[in-house]
Amino acid sequence: MIPVRILGTASVLPGPPVTTAEVCARVGRDAAEVERKTGIRTRHFAPAGTRAADLGAQALREALQAAGLPATSLKRILFVSSMGGDVTTPANGSRVAAALGLSGTCDAMDVGNACMGFLSAFDLAARSVATGLGPVGVVSVELLSRTTRPEDPRPYLVLGDAAAAVVLGEARPGEGVLGAAFGNDGTLPPDVVLENPHQTGQREGMRFLTPSRDMTRVALGALTRAASAVLQGAGLTVADVEWVLTHQPNGSMFAAILQALEVPADKSVTVVDTVGSVGSASLGTGLDRLWRTRPVKPGDRVLMVGVGAGVAHGAVLYRVAG
Amino acid sequence: MIPVRILGTASVLPGPPVTTAEVCARVGRDAAEVERKTGIRTRHFAPAGTRAADLGAQALREALQAAGLPATSLKRILFVSSMGGDVTTPANGSRVAAALGLSGTCDAMDVGNACMGFLSAFDLAARSVATGLGPVGVVSVELLSRTTRPEDPRPYLVLGDAAAAVVLGEARPGEGVLGAAFGNDGTLPPDVVLENPHQTGQREGMRFLTPSRDMTRVALGALTRAASAVLQGAGLTVADVEWVLTHQPNGSMFAAILQALEVPADKSVTVVDTVGSVGSASLGTGLDRLWRTRPVKPGDRVLMVGVGAGVAHGAVLYRVAG
Repeated sequence: MIPVRILGTASVLPGPPVTTAEVCARVGRDAAEVERKTGIRTRHFAPAGTRAADLGAQALREALQAAGLPATSLKRILFVSSMGGDVTTPANGSRVAAALGLSGTCDAMDVGNACMGFLSAFDLAARSVATGLGPVGVVSVELLSRTTRPEDPRPYLVLGDAAAAVVLGEARPGEGVLGAAFGNDGTLPPDVVLENPHQTGQREGMRFLTPSRDMTRVALGALTRAASAVLQGAGLTVADVEWVLTHQPNGSMFAAILQALEVPADKSVTVVDTVGSVGSASLGTGLDRLWRTRPVKPGDRVLMVGVGAGVAHGAVLYRVAG
Repeated sequence: MIPVRILGTASVLPGPPVTTAEVCARVGRDAAEVERKTGIRTRHFAPAGTRAADLGAQALREALQAAGLPATSLKRILFVSSMGGDVTTPANGSRVAAALGLSGTCDAMDVGNACMGFLSAFDLAARSVATGLGPVGVVSVELLSRTTRPEDPRPYLVLGDAAAAVVLGEARPGEGVLGAAFGNDGTLPPDVVLENPHQTGQREGMRFLTPSRDMTRVALGALTRAASAVLQGAGLTVADVEWVLTHQPNGSMFAAILQALEVPADKSVTVVDTVGSVGSASLGTGLDRLWRTRPVKPGDRVLMVGVGAGVAHGAVLYRVAG
């Protein structure tokens, strides 16, 4: 076990909700059909000029409040994004730290692993805490609306903006990560790609390169293998787990994941219907909703599973202090 | 102590060396003066079409060879860059893994913290190994020539391209990180910035925003504080340390760092004169040169200190197995 405690969580949605009817009107698609296919009723597009660092600082500040900790207690900030935040250099985390009033009392770095970024950073944070570093904040900020245009409707109709944070710190007895399994498989055909404009010399957008059916098949396989590996390693079945959080790229994929894992809907938390597909912030938003709205109690086990471009996939099994 | 072992290192320079006379000719500057001020005689610009993932895979493959390990032994790849590699999403590390023939046997993620990225990732890797994950590869790839133009000579004259890797694994007795101290300070005036084109909607270049003198003063202060914290924590002075590696943004800064730390030149390894300013790959290149060309012996202590935009700074004190 990796001893670590979830001290506080938060999630932030920038700007007012944008309905599926509104985005469909811009691309000439039938809203009822898109809503049925994607399971997305609303998403948020951050107002022009929104800084990723400010949104991240807001989420992390609220997670610290939930934890009852001052920002100065943080020893590390991991800033996660699939679109790179405000700046390629320096670390966006530096600016989050500055917005929290921190001046050299913690380090900060940016972590990217597509939609798995939050769970990857959760693992890095847990291992940092477990080796004595002190409290670590993970904050995922996705301004995915900056990477879409109505001219390419498939990403445009589903992607949204969001931020989510978690603060991890010293475990109580019996608390922590019971098991984790991660993998990336870059040998599979590219699924979702956002080229780096510094490398290509031109403007780039998020592109979906494979049919939904193929993405779903590959993603489900990778994700269920990771979940099984973690559960088997802990000598448990999914029936022993009180809560299951998954990445939610769209409603039908979310339903397919729960079905593949044989998880009843009341053990999970739906976020995709109101926030859309928010990349690495999806799992963080789900974690925050779980922590704030469900009766999570000592001894409960929480399985977090994710999958994303790359193909990045993984699972973390966390036990709340008994 | 964080128990971990440096199993192997490597560094790669893409394309032929480009002399300071050549780059000065393109911007109408006096080569002798620039060489004297920067301490840089040559740097490398990767040929057009060079993929960051391929360069990273080459460095990591050579580090694995030095370690005597097959690629399949890796459990995690941390891909570090200040310019974002080939793609913003998915993780460039996914492509490095694929180029090494790996298909889901390890995870991969991208880490960014300006010139401190290599040392930040070294710390994350060490903590991953120490908590039982297994061997971790850190590979820094900087294609900084993609972010410069002769029209902005200050970055253009010093920045270069390079890749460097290290493989960390299980420690032998008495081996590992004796101490580490890191911090970022985003409240200081922005020093070096590369805006994110996904956010700005336009092409961006690496910009140096503060005078060299101010950058040097701030950087030296941050770096010496980190080094002192680590040495004091270990009950040592710099005289007790056999080897000191530092980030080398230019020759005069490198000399100033050694002077500030009171380190004689023969305890360090100069790389900036032939590779230029290579961001996060600077420390990794220095580590590889140290490991391959100097009589590093059991019991030796290696102090690695870095500083970069953000202002990111830190120090790691590593002890070779006794």
